[in-house]
Amino acid sequence: MSTTNHDRHHRAHDDRALAPFVDDPAFELHRGGKIVVEPTAPIDGPDDLALAYTPGVGRVSQAVADDPPLGWTVTGRANAVAVLSNGSAVLGLGDIGPEAAMPVMEGKAVLFKQFGDVAAYPVCVDAPTVDEMVAIGKAIAPSFGGINLEDIKAPHCFDIERRLQDELDIPVFHDDQHGTAIVALAALTNAAKLVDKPVDELRVAIVGTGAAGVAVAELLYDAGAGQAGTGDIIGCDSRGILHRGRGPLHPSKQWFVEQGNADDRRGGAREAIKGADVLLGLSGPGIIDPTWLADMKDDAIVFAMANPTPEVMPHEMPANVAIVATGRSDFPNQINNVLAFPGVFRGMLDVRATRCTIEMKRAAADALAALVAQPTPERIIPGAFEPGVADAVADAVRTCAVAQGFVRDR
Amino acid sequence: MSTTNHDRHHRAHDDRALAPFVDDPAFELHRGGKIVVEPTAPIDGPDDLALAYTPGVGRVSQAVADDPPLGWTVTGRANAVAVLSNGSAVLGLGDIGPEAAMPVMEGKAVLFKQFGDVAAYPVCVDAPTVDEMVAIGKAIAPSFGGINLEDIKAPHCFDIERRLQDELDIPVFHDDQHGTAIVALAALTNAAKLVDKPVDELRVAIVGTGAAGVAVAELLYDAGAGQAGTGDIIGCDSRGILHRGRGPLHPSKQWFVEQGNADDRRGGAREAIKGADVLLGLSGPGIIDPTWLADMKDDAIVFAMANPTPEVMPHEMPANVAIVATGRSDFPNQINNVLAFPGVFRGMLDVRATRCTIEMKRAAADALAALVAQPTPERIIPGAFEPGVADAVADAVRTCAVAQGFVRDR
Repeated sequence: MSTTNHDRHHRAHDDRALAPFVDDPAFELHRGGKIVVEPTAPIDGPDDLALAYTPGVGRVSQAVADDPPLGWTVTGRANAVAVLSNGSAVLGLGDIGPEAAMPVMEGKAVLFKQFGDVAAYPVCVDAPTVDEMVAIGKAIAPSFGGINLEDIKAPHCFDIERRLQDELDIPVFHDDQHGTAIVALAALTNAAKLVDKPVDELRVAIVGTGAAGVAVAELLYDAGAGQAGTGDIIGCDSRGILHRGRGPLHPSKQWFVEQGNADDRRGGAREAIKGADVLLGLSGPGIIDPTWLADMKDDAIVFAMANPTPEVMPHEMPANVAIVATGRSDFPNQINNVLAFPGVFRGMLDVRATRCTIEMKRAAADALAALVAQPTPERIIPGAFEPGVADAVADAVRTCAVAQGFVRDR
Repeated sequence: MSTTNHDRHHRAHDDRALAPFVDDPAFELHRGGKIVVEPTAPIDGPDDLALAYTPGVGRVSQAVADDPPLGWTVTGRANAVAVLSNGSAVLGLGDIGPEAAMPVMEGKAVLFKQFGDVAAYPVCVDAPTVDEMVAIGKAIAPSFGGINLEDIKAPHCFDIERRLQDELDIPVFHDDQHGTAIVALAALTNAAKLVDKPVDELRVAIVGTGAAGVAVAELLYDAGAGQAGTGDIIGCDSRGILHRGRGPLHPSKQWFVEQGNADDRRGGAREAIKGADVLLGLSGPGIIDPTWLADMKDDAIVFAMANPTPEVMPHEMPANVAIVATGRSDFPNQINNVLAFPGVFRGMLDVRATRCTIEMKRAAADALAALVAQPTPERIIPGAFEPGVADAVADAVRTCAVAQGFVRDR
């Protein structure tokens, strides 16, 4: 059918709705959304209908009922990912809810397709609690080969991801956590090499222990960071350093007390940063005074990842800072999740992985780091649009999943 | 990224999985599923990324947070329909579950696109109870402009649909019920005209009072069927005629006792059919003996809609039966839902309808009936592939929604 009526009925309405934003091309680009669903098996006549729909589809469905694994072959599930969000922590905008989160989740679906050839679909849900998110994730799982959790506030996101991954046999991956963690570990691997410091002896200060901060800490720790010599990982939230006297903490923050901060250091961000080799900023602008960085060690590494405004701008770094990364595309070394999630899911889907493990995330980070044959201070990770990134990440994740045996054998 | 790895990893596996079905072309056609998700706004470089994703998308999401109705303009929601099923009553296959239902729901999504230019997405859920289905429908609603419930068993389907439509401000439509009802009413309108019997004086026997039977009865009743003279609607389930002595019944069946069966007739299908002008079969093969139809009135109308095997085959009809319809494409007068649901949703989406009403369903049926300018016994409804069907239905539904005021004004 033609789209004439559809267009006619809404064009005037949508023109009015978009009028206030006429100077911002992002709005016109978003008119009508950014994704469509297209048939791969068009139905042009009764013969097509009899195969793609009744009665043919009945034979296919019956065959899946008789032998459920066949479903992975005869549906799009094997390449389909749900981009599941309740809109409780969207970009830096906060808890703006599922409707306002939709443009971001559609954008994510576009990136999934463009970079990973993954058929991702945005599922923005009115589900403010952990229990509701878990119930929905479990319920929709039969339609998907994986679930990408997105823009869910901490600490809910930790419990939602853990419970879903425990109960489902498809991979569950909260990109705000692990996408960032994978790219940060890749960048840190090359940065440490450049300044000739062993990763396991690094003193790492993480300012901002929300979703991304916690995941970065855990992945770095898994890679050995801060576990030898005088190495350490110190976490710092809005109330200061996480230490033994902080009282009851969510397990995600308690981790920093148990696995890090060996000297039980106390104080604020300034004290966390003092003497560190590495500062990972996952907070916001105005939290860190640039002069504090002068108290870091020589050849310091600073990833100021707050978006869109880094904690400290590159030109504000004191002389002891040797390597800088941010979340922005207009500076060198962009820590951009798009380097990770398309390849990670591509790899997991390729082998019909049954879960996402920390080893797969490590493998993804290693593959990303290895893509930069000769790191320089201005190039510790690949650019988002360099060809081959998702393929390399997917290869590594695939190999890891197979080695771990977390793959569907049929 | 290329799909080479993806293909390589699974081709052999899928070849093996499909080997037992090599003689059935429906299976090879289903390899990898029948739908894909495609970007309408490709991201080919940093400039595209800055508009379709961060930072541009952040401005769009913030604008929706400030003014939620804008979401209908800047996302795909206005044209998106969830094909929501728990797989509890799939075609004639029964409760085969969400995974086995997926091929059918993907097929439905293909039909939605092909016939109505609707972007439908299959959401097959592990949600066996009414409460779970309602919770999921409510939760996913922010991502969609409408919900098409599909293949959900009776009587759950009635409560799920009613509760969802009560609580949501997007249309909810259970196609197994209302798609069938709309097409059946359209066909009956033209059939009654042909045999020159007023619709309101018809004696109608409905054999099979599941999802479709109940909806057909209610829509016919709303159109006046059986409400004048000696007209009546008699329902009959697997235990016989629904009458006042049947004890506690689900409200969907109780309806037949309160609105129909004026003489409190009792017995089985044979007694239900006796003296009827119209037999609507929504049961299965072997339920109705062809000889019973000889007890119907002269110029009887029989819609034997059981699929794939009609209750009575067209060649078995006794001489008093003047008009026959079935669910099959290889006989005249196919009662096929595809005549209704693409246009119904096209119309509702076009005006961003806030609910689906019985008046819209009546309007759809009237429009369908009117498409056949000069009905004949072999042609009381259009064929599924005749051009203009969905447009005509959409026009009627749109007009009705506007007249009723169930449209989003912005």
